[in-house]
Amino acid sequence: MAEKTYFYHVGCDVCADAERQFANNLDKTKFEIERVHLGEKPARRAEAKAAGVKTVPAFVIAGKPYHINFGANLADLK
Amino acid sequence: MAEKTYFYHVGCDVCADAERQFANNLDKTKFEIERVHLGEKPARRAEAKAAGVKTVPAFVIAGKPYHINFGANLADLK
Repeated sequence: MAEKTYFYHVGCDVCADAERQFANNLDKTKFEIERVHLGEKPARRAEAKAAGVKTVPAFVIAGKPYHINFGANLADLK
Repeated sequence: MAEKTYFYHVGCDVCADAERQFANNLDKTKFEIERVHLGEKPARRAEAKAAGVKTVPAFVIAGKPYHINFGANLADLK
């Protein structure tokens, strides 16, 4: 069964690039990816933070955070 | 044609985890991934550095670096 996976981003260039190269190209039989824009959905920030996400873009796979390059600090989002 | 892609690592736990989740699961029709252990192959560090790799684990896709979490600084490798 595909692992429920989260891709957190804020629509930034670094985020879009990470989405294009990674989120769009991971094996769909293994990962079911939900893309979450934390700028548009501030209510979702708590779950990202709880999973250990410090910066975006980042994936959470099996409860673990994977930060890809640096777009923005979660703590800096308004 | 699959894009020639590099996955640079030093055999660390963070590296192995990134390899398992990302390098092993990216679409093989789009990416032809060469895994390069920069601890065992110091002669390859220059190419990684030239592509902008600062830390490992990191991918280089189409000449651009994608750092995933933090395992080690390239500059700290002996």
